[in-house]
Amino acid sequence: MSKIVEIHKEWLRHRLVLHELLELINDEHTYFKPWDNAFSMGSLAVHIATSMDMFVQAVKNGTFTPPTASNQFESMDEVRKIVREYTEKTRTDFQTLTNSHLEQVFEFNQFVAPGQIWLNTAKDHEVHHKGQLFTYARMVGITDVPFFIKQPPKK
Amino acid sequence: MSKIVEIHKEWLRHRLVLHELLELINDEHTYFKPWDNAFSMGSLAVHIATSMDMFVQAVKNGTFTPPTASNQFESMDEVRKIVREYTEKTRTDFQTLTNSHLEQVFEFNQFVAPGQIWLNTAKDHEVHHKGQLFTYARMVGITDVPFFIKQPPKK
Repeated sequence: MSKIVEIHKEWLRHRLVLHELLELINDEHTYFKPWDNAFSMGSLAVHIATSMDMFVQAVKNGTFTPPTASNQFESMDEVRKIVREYTEKTRTDFQTLTNSHLEQVFEFNQFVAPGQIWLNTAKDHEVHHKGQLFTYARMVGITDVPFFIKQPPKK
Repeated sequence: MSKIVEIHKEWLRHRLVLHELLELINDEHTYFKPWDNAFSMGSLAVHIATSMDMFVQAVKNGTFTPPTASNQFESMDEVRKIVREYTEKTRTDFQTLTNSHLEQVFEFNQFVAPGQIWLNTAKDHEVHHKGQLFTYARMVGITDVPFFIKQPPKK
């Protein structure tokens, strides 16, 4: 398996769980936040999806461009729709990446690293915030949450 | 850089941040939990460290063995000490691993995968729970938290 396909698959092990988690959250919790100034439930989910897109675009283009889409939402259905659309976009983008994109070095906020490190950072950023979203979900009373990652095949 | 050294370094980008985050938490929050039945602040930190150890031991030995140490604590100083000791143990263990450990296939709870997938899962498990610990920290009023990952060098 090529390196880029590995990274794509490892990221999907998390994104598919995010979809499942969002299915469990009702509209009344769309703007829930556990502390003042926190991302709300909906904003955190959208932040996960748009950030991954931003990193993948950057690796594709060799330069960072701040996101411009506004991604407004008023319900969890709208949040789910935004996230699903970004998931499809990111999956398509991954298919255009090659191993040479992983070696290309570029800058983000004055930090310099090759594409592979930025994609690792992007995936970890998603796992970090998804972990927080699990906490949000438990705090609003959801008990039957999915496992945090898609497991490998069973024997 | 060998694959195993890459994985070791990518994991350390998170463990070093965990150390910094734990420094900010006072004893009064040792048993804080955001929902009933949650891990407490201290338990979640210890769970992160002992789980990574368990996975690395498993990859080293080719088989999973449940942890036996009890790791009792009554203060954040004791939590920090436990985590630091596991960090040193895991760093030492990583140095004994070779790329052939990454290819060795074995089972965990009936799921079957090579060492590399289990080490990725282990790191992601740490990032997931560390994300939750950031939420805990913000909820008890800590505002000046570190960035979630050690960044690459600046230009």
